[in-house]
Amino acid sequence: MKIDEIAKIPTLEDIQTAAQRIDRYIHNTPVLTSQTFNNQVKSNIFLKCENFQKVGAFKIRGATNAIFSLSEDQLERGVVTHSSGNHGAAVAMAAKHRGIKAYVVMPKNAPEVKINAVRGYGADVILCEPTLADRERKTETIRSKHGAYLIHPFNDPQVVAGQGTIGLELIGQVPELDIIIGPIGGGGLMSGISIASRAVNPIIQLYGAEPTGADDAYRSLKANERVTHQIPDTVADGLLTVLSPLTFSILCENLTEIITVTEEEIISAMRFIWERMKIIIEPSSAVPVAAVLKHPRKFSHHRVGIVITGGNVDITKLPW
Amino acid sequence: MKIDEIAKIPTLEDIQTAAQRIDRYIHNTPVLTSQTFNNQVKSNIFLKCENFQKVGAFKIRGATNAIFSLSEDQLERGVVTHSSGNHGAAVAMAAKHRGIKAYVVMPKNAPEVKINAVRGYGADVILCEPTLADRERKTETIRSKHGAYLIHPFNDPQVVAGQGTIGLELIGQVPELDIIIGPIGGGGLMSGISIASRAVNPIIQLYGAEPTGADDAYRSLKANERVTHQIPDTVADGLLTVLSPLTFSILCENLTEIITVTEEEIISAMRFIWERMKIIIEPSSAVPVAAVLKHPRKFSHHRVGIVITGGNVDITKLPW
Repeated sequence: MKIDEIAKIPTLEDIQTAAQRIDRYIHNTPVLTSQTFNNQVKSNIFLKCENFQKVGAFKIRGATNAIFSLSEDQLERGVVTHSSGNHGAAVAMAAKHRGIKAYVVMPKNAPEVKINAVRGYGADVILCEPTLADRERKTETIRSKHGAYLIHPFNDPQVVAGQGTIGLELIGQVPELDIIIGPIGGGGLMSGISIASRAVNPIIQLYGAEPTGADDAYRSLKANERVTHQIPDTVADGLLTVLSPLTFSILCENLTEIITVTEEEIISAMRFIWERMKIIIEPSSAVPVAAVLKHPRKFSHHRVGIVITGGNVDITKLPW
Repeated sequence: MKIDEIAKIPTLEDIQTAAQRIDRYIHNTPVLTSQTFNNQVKSNIFLKCENFQKVGAFKIRGATNAIFSLSEDQLERGVVTHSSGNHGAAVAMAAKHRGIKAYVVMPKNAPEVKINAVRGYGADVILCEPTLADRERKTETIRSKHGAYLIHPFNDPQVVAGQGTIGLELIGQVPELDIIIGPIGGGGLMSGISIASRAVNPIIQLYGAEPTGADDAYRSLKANERVTHQIPDTVADGLLTVLSPLTFSILCENLTEIITVTEEEIISAMRFIWERMKIIIEPSSAVPVAAVLKHPRKFSHHRVGIVITGGNVDITKLPW
């Protein structure tokens, strides 16, 4: 699939099918609460902890659903993706579960621990220059040379449906949720969650959160036109990409608002969760936390789900 | 109570009473598991996560039980304790819940964040020199001057009974547990847990874990005589104290073995839990994790509970 095609928008039924399909390969992650957090914003906050998910991030849901929804024929030559982070590990693990070959194109400056993790799941790692152009070029080479099937990190309805299973789970775990907020990178996460949660509860509000240093979705929704160029500058290393046609169209339809937060706010929110809740969250996960702490009156006296997307952090290089 | 008196050893009934008494003031903390950890030691490991407890550590159980078991008359002049860490915060919070005055003697080199936390619960903080002699002297001065009741961190049957509630909870959460292992500082934690768990299941095995740099309990059990002098040298800042007469007598009776681990093993185990399980544990909690990782054959093919005692770490000064 090419990025400039709008793929079919997944439905609640697709997400329910995804939930069944991926069930044995993922964790139903816990929801945590904190009196301190609740007091600070005068509301009931529920953290959906995908940092405790397999591979340490929600990405395993979409990758597993995509890979297990393909036929034997489609998978004969394996799968390929490019990723510097969690999606690459997720594709590698899902391919291992399906018993097929995976090629993961990674920038050569990616942390060795991440490269080793992807190799550890049995994937072939192809190093590239740390530019989007070279990543896409190398990925296309692998695709055409080996006939591998491209698993795009977010412009794929089955990936979006997989991420949407978080919404179903969260609504099942927390009755009468008023709001769900999560970070926006390529937009796959909140696309899936918004479809699932609005289908179940049409009056639920969905918020996105973005770093000001990578605010293409904020600008896209404001302009009502997809912003395709940005030079990201943020500690939230999972949110560097721009929306795809698929996720842009879903988020335009479903989001109440996108809130942007500064680097200081992200780091301070990350530290707040580490110190008060004793769980390790990566900077991208701190973005919606920062948004809620920044605008307590938007969220006060409501039941608010925050999607904690992952916990993969280099603990020897912390941002404080 | 003076440290050289052996106090009455608490019973299962005392611990059951404690569980009811403290129920509304504490969290029933979750038990977490990890496939990676299980694979590594070929057993089923269950982490009892007191790092998610109120004040970030199990100490709130013993302090709350002690303070709520005293009469109005005994508490008229408040309570006093000395602590550089979690017990001080626990006494301060429990006193606040009971509505009484608390005095906490703290070394003047304690981290400001810890001093502020104790003050935040409304306790009076009295700074002292960072020596045991000055801590005890200042504590005795407060006790005699104000008539405050001393809440000893571990040589107190009601404190031990409070900590023992962890054992009851864990056994209720994890059926057919074979082994429980936890760190040994003053010994209150494993004294309480061993009484509770052996009363419920007489064949359960109890292990202690200590840093080689603060191994008084290991040496005491070996010599069958309480070692009262040590100059502790360890990153596990919750395990600097020596056993009391009460905890020594209980642990001699109940422990299978004490395993000692080096500083490198502690830090490596702490990092293993942070990176693999995405939870923040303090160095003292990593001591039993290190013991299990060091001796996998002692624990393999068993169901092993590890007590994660707390998560209070200065995240700007990590040991790696």
